[in-house]
Amino acid sequence: MRTVEWDYERHLVKMIDQRKLPSIFEFAEFDDYQGVAAGIREMYVRGAPAIGAAGAFGMALAAQQSQATTRESLLRELEQAAAVLRATRPTAVNLFWAIERMLRVVTSEELEHVDDIRQNILQEAQSLADEDVEINLRMARNGAALVKEGDTILHHCNTGSLATVDWGTALGVIRMANEQGKNIHVLLDETRPQLQGARLSAWECEQYKIPYTLIADNAAGHYMRTGQIDIVFVGSDRTAANGDVANKIGTYKLGVVAKENGIPFFPVVPTSTVDLSLATGDEIPIEERPAEEITGLTFFGRPVAPAGARVGNPAFDVTPHKYVTGIVTEHSVVYPPYSINLRRVVEEEQAKVMGKV
Amino acid sequence: MRTVEWDYERHLVKMIDQRKLPSIFEFAEFDDYQGVAAGIREMYVRGAPAIGAAGAFGMALAAQQSQATTRESLLRELEQAAAVLRATRPTAVNLFWAIERMLRVVTSEELEHVDDIRQNILQEAQSLADEDVEINLRMARNGAALVKEGDTILHHCNTGSLATVDWGTALGVIRMANEQGKNIHVLLDETRPQLQGARLSAWECEQYKIPYTLIADNAAGHYMRTGQIDIVFVGSDRTAANGDVANKIGTYKLGVVAKENGIPFFPVVPTSTVDLSLATGDEIPIEERPAEEITGLTFFGRPVAPAGARVGNPAFDVTPHKYVTGIVTEHSVVYPPYSINLRRVVEEEQAKVMGKV
Repeated sequence: MRTVEWDYERHLVKMIDQRKLPSIFEFAEFDDYQGVAAGIREMYVRGAPAIGAAGAFGMALAAQQSQATTRESLLRELEQAAAVLRATRPTAVNLFWAIERMLRVVTSEELEHVDDIRQNILQEAQSLADEDVEINLRMARNGAALVKEGDTILHHCNTGSLATVDWGTALGVIRMANEQGKNIHVLLDETRPQLQGARLSAWECEQYKIPYTLIADNAAGHYMRTGQIDIVFVGSDRTAANGDVANKIGTYKLGVVAKENGIPFFPVVPTSTVDLSLATGDEIPIEERPAEEITGLTFFGRPVAPAGARVGNPAFDVTPHKYVTGIVTEHSVVYPPYSINLRRVVEEEQAKVMGKV
Repeated sequence: MRTVEWDYERHLVKMIDQRKLPSIFEFAEFDDYQGVAAGIREMYVRGAPAIGAAGAFGMALAAQQSQATTRESLLRELEQAAAVLRATRPTAVNLFWAIERMLRVVTSEELEHVDDIRQNILQEAQSLADEDVEINLRMARNGAALVKEGDTILHHCNTGSLATVDWGTALGVIRMANEQGKNIHVLLDETRPQLQGARLSAWECEQYKIPYTLIADNAAGHYMRTGQIDIVFVGSDRTAANGDVANKIGTYKLGVVAKENGIPFFPVVPTSTVDLSLATGDEIPIEERPAEEITGLTFFGRPVAPAGARVGNPAFDVTPHKYVTGIVTEHSVVYPPYSINLRRVVEEEQAKVMGKV
């Protein structure tokens, strides 16, 4: 069971509708790329790697929808689809990376016939999804080696199977440590505003029988200061060349407070989410999301804010690299100086992927 | 209009039912001290100074309920009421302080007749409530002097009129700076789990026409790191002799991140909330509140957590004094070393109150 997948019988894209969890477990189906774009924007699916895979399958759908008979006209239509898919979420780099990879099939392949190109785009999207699972497993093993017997781990947002194609990044590390029998316990930040920690990570912990305690984001500092947290694992939506990490809003405060208390802080980062073109995290665009995520809540049946309250709702923040103990990648755990060590590891992994294409 | 008050015509205690704000503005009425205790525990009223006043009026109600004909039997009954009222909320010290002050009337007065004692307890509760308003005004003036023209202020929880008898502590400072025409803007942490920032502070800002933006608690770090916050004001439920401040959960993270970014961090602290008997904040008991505050939320009509999720819900945390730029009291703004300067100011103010009794 995967978060995002291609249905080979019915030629459509299926995604778990994460907006309905934990109460309803249900797949949504999309038979055109415009629907996939809406699904990404409206957060049927979220999490940088899962968005990347959804974008890739969206491109495969666009290729199938196209009536083009020449490589040039197919490319034109796919570039239009790419623009629509790119416009859905601005922060995670995987989406852009996945779309570029699909476009490259059209431009770099030696295939003559457009039907062969269509077929190859779908194969490439499938490869990307399969590689995501494999990469997550490698990260999980690398990260789990950092976890000691009996550790209490702090986790933010959702970074599990639901944020990827399968297995997960930070929550994948935690799942692996749990399966290795390390007697861990995980504290889950509920993660306002979208509450992915409560809705998704708690649900995943129940599926994988990982002992967890759900907390308000505000409580994480208290648990850190009073010696109740041993290590922090978070995800990343985009990481700059210097090791600055953009991740779900609230991560920055965790990084600062972890360092202040001497607690190791490890983002779990597939190299596909590292953007070497950005010198620092200050260049990463931060998505501002709708006010309703803040005001659309009810607390014991009552609205939580005055009607028309003015709201600020940045979805991500940047944790500067000085708070980052190490970065768990599928290659290895990377330590400072990131501007040298992270670049080397990313280029090595990217060369492997390019070699396959 | 006061948050907590005595109704002299009907001999009962009235409180704004804060659980219903911002949608419904309504007073709840209590004609016995057991009801007042339930009202405090169930958070009809919250905020350290408001809880103190509610406790004092609860004692006045207990005195009126009593059929005692001797000072000794009245004292016995009042000590029983005091135990019930004290057991409602463990963290805020004002409650204990207010109850002690009421008991002192019975033991220290020269009054002979129990009816005179009853009358004097009510007068003492009324004095405590009136003094709270006066103290808040003095703090507001002291704190507003720290605010510069055009400042953006970060605020946590609710510390306004609704947290006190009237006017407020940290939000009182902000209200005063706004009335002084300083063109301020306030960022309001929504303050999970109880969302007092969204439900109460945003409502108060609308009443007082203070320009505000409501944010998820997770976003505060982002605004601090990107230079969008000039100063932070928070309340305090109990402050230790060394300046360690217990306040609403999440305050600690704000203190650490403010210091990291060179942003002044000022708790606004009536001297009645300073507990000189505690050497450090580690001695302050932290209330653990029900899991339903975390799991009882719905997000666009759906439950936010798996049924039966294990929850940690500490209501307060301790911000060590090294993160505290200064403490705004009704006497003055107190700066380090707090173990000397805070003690001096508190003893001076306590001597004034004792002189009145």
